[in-house]
Amino acid sequence: MQILISAVGDTDPIRNFHDGPLLHIARVYRPEKIVLIHSERSLDKHEKVVKALQSIKDYAPEIVQDDLILKNDEVSIFDTMYATLSNIVGNYMSDENDVILSLTSATPQIISAMFAINRISDFNVRAVQVATPQKSSNEGIGYDNEKDIDVLIETNLDNQSDFEDRTHEDKGINFSQDLTKRNLNILLANYDYEAVFKLLDSQKGFPNIKKLKKTLENISETIKIQGIPEKIANSKLSSQAQNALNSYLNIERNYKQGNIAEVLIRLKSLVEYILENYLNEQFNIIVYTDNKPHLNAEKYPDILAKFQENAKNKGQEYHDNILNLLYYINILEFLEPKHDLLNYTGKIKEINNVRNQVAHSLQAFDRKNLKNVSSAVYASKQILLASFNIDNHWFSFYDDLNQEIKKLL
Amino acid sequence: MQILISAVGDTDPIRNFHDGPLLHIARVYRPEKIVLIHSERSLDKHEKVVKALQSIKDYAPEIVQDDLILKNDEVSIFDTMYATLSNIVGNYMSDENDVILSLTSATPQIISAMFAINRISDFNVRAVQVATPQKSSNEGIGYDNEKDIDVLIETNLDNQSDFEDRTHEDKGINFSQDLTKRNLNILLANYDYEAVFKLLDSQKGFPNIKKLKKTLENISETIKIQGIPEKIANSKLSSQAQNALNSYLNIERNYKQGNIAEVLIRLKSLVEYILENYLNEQFNIIVYTDNKPHLNAEKYPDILAKFQENAKNKGQEYHDNILNLLYYINILEFLEPKHDLLNYTGKIKEINNVRNQVAHSLQAFDRKNLKNVSSAVYASKQILLASFNIDNHWFSFYDDLNQEIKKLL
Repeated sequence: MQILISAVGDTDPIRNFHDGPLLHIARVYRPEKIVLIHSERSLDKHEKVVKALQSIKDYAPEIVQDDLILKNDEVSIFDTMYATLSNIVGNYMSDENDVILSLTSATPQIISAMFAINRISDFNVRAVQVATPQKSSNEGIGYDNEKDIDVLIETNLDNQSDFEDRTHEDKGINFSQDLTKRNLNILLANYDYEAVFKLLDSQKGFPNIKKLKKTLENISETIKIQGIPEKIANSKLSSQAQNALNSYLNIERNYKQGNIAEVLIRLKSLVEYILENYLNEQFNIIVYTDNKPHLNAEKYPDILAKFQENAKNKGQEYHDNILNLLYYINILEFLEPKHDLLNYTGKIKEINNVRNQVAHSLQAFDRKNLKNVSSAVYASKQILLASFNIDNHWFSFYDDLNQEIKKLL
Repeated sequence: MQILISAVGDTDPIRNFHDGPLLHIARVYRPEKIVLIHSERSLDKHEKVVKALQSIKDYAPEIVQDDLILKNDEVSIFDTMYATLSNIVGNYMSDENDVILSLTSATPQIISAMFAINRISDFNVRAVQVATPQKSSNEGIGYDNEKDIDVLIETNLDNQSDFEDRTHEDKGINFSQDLTKRNLNILLANYDYEAVFKLLDSQKGFPNIKKLKKTLENISETIKIQGIPEKIANSKLSSQAQNALNSYLNIERNYKQGNIAEVLIRLKSLVEYILENYLNEQFNIIVYTDNKPHLNAEKYPDILAKFQENAKNKGQEYHDNILNLLYYINILEFLEPKHDLLNYTGKIKEINNVRNQVAHSLQAFDRKNLKNVSSAVYASKQILLASFNIDNHWFSFYDDLNQEIKKLL
C-alpha cells in the first residue's frame, strides 16, 4: 500500500489559489493512505485539510491522523523532530508499504528531519518536494488559514485535470545504504562471502537484497562444506577435474585471505589427489585396500624393488605402505622422469615438513617460510594445469563472482 | 581553536529584535574564529553581519568569509549543499580545531546538510541549533533585511548581559559510526576478526580505533597461522596442552561459523595429537623415525603381536606402520580398556571415513552427517579434558575476547 506521511504546515492545505504541498503530493501520487502529523498549531485545521484532500476528483484515500501531536516549542528543534518523525515513519514501514514523505510541509526543522530520514535512516522510503507555484520563495505571500475552505477549494487553480505537476522526488543516495555498500565491497574484496551475507541479512530494504542474499548464501554454504559451486558442477569438466579445480580455487582464495595454515594443510592433499588420479589413469598403478591406495606391485615389481631399496638405504623396510605424495613423486620420477609435473613437485616437497608441523604437531606456521608457501601455491596450479584440461577462465572464478555480486550492489 | 562555521540566512544577523541564529551562537559560544558561508543572496549583507558580530561585548573574533559563494539555484539542492559544505568543513578540520556548525541558518537543505555532516560524516564536529525567541514558527514575523544595522543592533533585546540562551547542541549519535558499530557487532558475533579489522581499517575517527585495530589484527593474524594467542601462550599450561587447547578452540570457532569441512579435517589431527602425547607420556610407547611415530615394539611386543593379528584378520600384514589415530585407539584399548577417553574416541572413529572423503578425495561434505560432526566436536573436548589439566575458563576464550572488544566498540 502506498502511504503518504506528511506534517501539516501553514501553507497546507491551500495557499495563494494553489495546492499546498500536502494536497499537491496527494493529487500527483494518489496514495491509498495519508497519515497527517499535526502540531498543536495545525490541529485546528484538520477538518479543512481532510476536506481539501477529499476534493481531489475520483480519489478517496484513507486519511488518518497520527496519535502524536508535535508540540509548538519542539517544531523548531531539529533533533527532536528527527527522533519523533523517525519513530512515526518506523511505525508505518513494512514490506507491503511504500512510504512517501513530504519534504515541503511545516518548519525547516521538520522538512530537514524528513530529508534526513530519507537520506540517512535505514528506512527505504521515498521523499517528495513541491515547488511553489511561482518557483521561488513564498516570502511576502499571505497565508489563507482563516479563509473558508469551500471557497479555497472552489478557487484552487490546481483543482483541475490539467494542473501543473510541481512535485520533485529526491532520488539522491541514501547515506546509510551507501556506507553499507562501502563496507560490503571491502568484505567482498576479501572474498568473505559469509560476512557480506551476515551484513545483508541485517539490512532492510537494500536494493536487490533477495538476489544478493541468495547468491551469497549459496556460495558461503558451498564453501563451508567444500562443495562444488554450481557453475563448476554444471561444466563439462570431469568430476576429478572439478574436485581438483575446486580445491585449488579454495586454496588460492585462502592464500589471498592470508589463511596460511589452512593453505598448507590443503596443498598437499590437492597435489596428492592430482598425482594419484594421474598415475592411476595413465598406468593403473594403484590397488585400493580399505579405500586406501597401495602400489599395484604385481604389475610394477620394479617400482616395488625401488621402494624397498629406498627404504633400505634409510635403514627401514618397505611393506606395501599406503601411498602418499612422496611415493607418487617417486613413481612419476621412475616412470616419466622428464614429465612437466616434476618441475613443480619439488616445491610441494619443500613445504612438506612445515606442513606436517602445522597439520600434525599443531604448531604455528613460521612466517619466514611464507615465500615457500607462495611458490608451492603457484606450483600446485601448474600441476593442476599439466594434469587436467582446465580452461584458463576457470581460474578467475571468484573474481568473476565478485564482479557479478558488485553489479547487484 | 574553536571555529564556528555557518551559512548566512534571511534571519541573520538580527530579526524581530533578537539575534539571528548565527549571531546567537557566537554570543553563547564565543568562538575564536567565525567562518561565514554566503550565498549570492546573502552576500550583500556581509558587512551588516560582521558589524552585528562585533557588537557582542568584550568579544573580538576573527571573522572570515569562505571563498566559495553558494549559488542561489543550488541552496535548495541537498546533494550539492552536502558536497560543498562537507568540503568547506573538511578544510577547517584539524586536531587543533574544535569545529561548531550552525544548524539553524539558511535553507532546509543547508540545515539538513549541516546535520548530515554532524551525524553521518567521519568529521568529529559539534552542531548547534537556535530556537526562535517565541519558541515556535517564525510565520508572520517580518524579515529585517532592509533595516539600518545600527538601529537593529541598538534595539536587539539579546544584546545585553542577561540574554536568554536559546542554543541547543545536537548530541545525537553519529549514524555512520552507529551503523558501522552494528555491522562490526554482527561480524564479531560470528568471530570474523579479519572482517572486523578490515572494516575498522577503513574508518577515520572511530572511538578507540587504535586499540581496537591492534587487538583485532593480532588475533586475526594469529589465527591465520594457527598461532597461540598471547594469553594462552603466557599461561602456565604445558606447551602440548597449549597446542591442543588452541587447536580445539579453532575447531570450535570454525564449527560455530559452520566451516564443517575445516572442522572435519582438523578434528582427527587434534585427537591424534592428544592420544599420541598421552600414550607417549604415560607409556613411552613411541619411537620416532624421520619424525614419524612408530610403535616401540621392543618395549611392547604384545601390542606388536596384536597389530599383526588385526592385520592378518583383514588379510593384510603389519610392518612397523606409521602410527595414526586408529592405532592409538587400539593401543589405549589394549593398555587401559576402562579409560574415560575410550567413551569418546568412538565418536571420532565414526567420522573418519567422511573425513577422509573431504580431506583426501576432495569431496563435498554431506550435511546428513552433521550430527556426527557435532558429536565428534563434543567428544574431542572431553578427550582434551581427560588428557590435560585445562581449566574450564579457557573454553570461553573467544567469547571473552569478544566481550573485551565489545567494550571498546
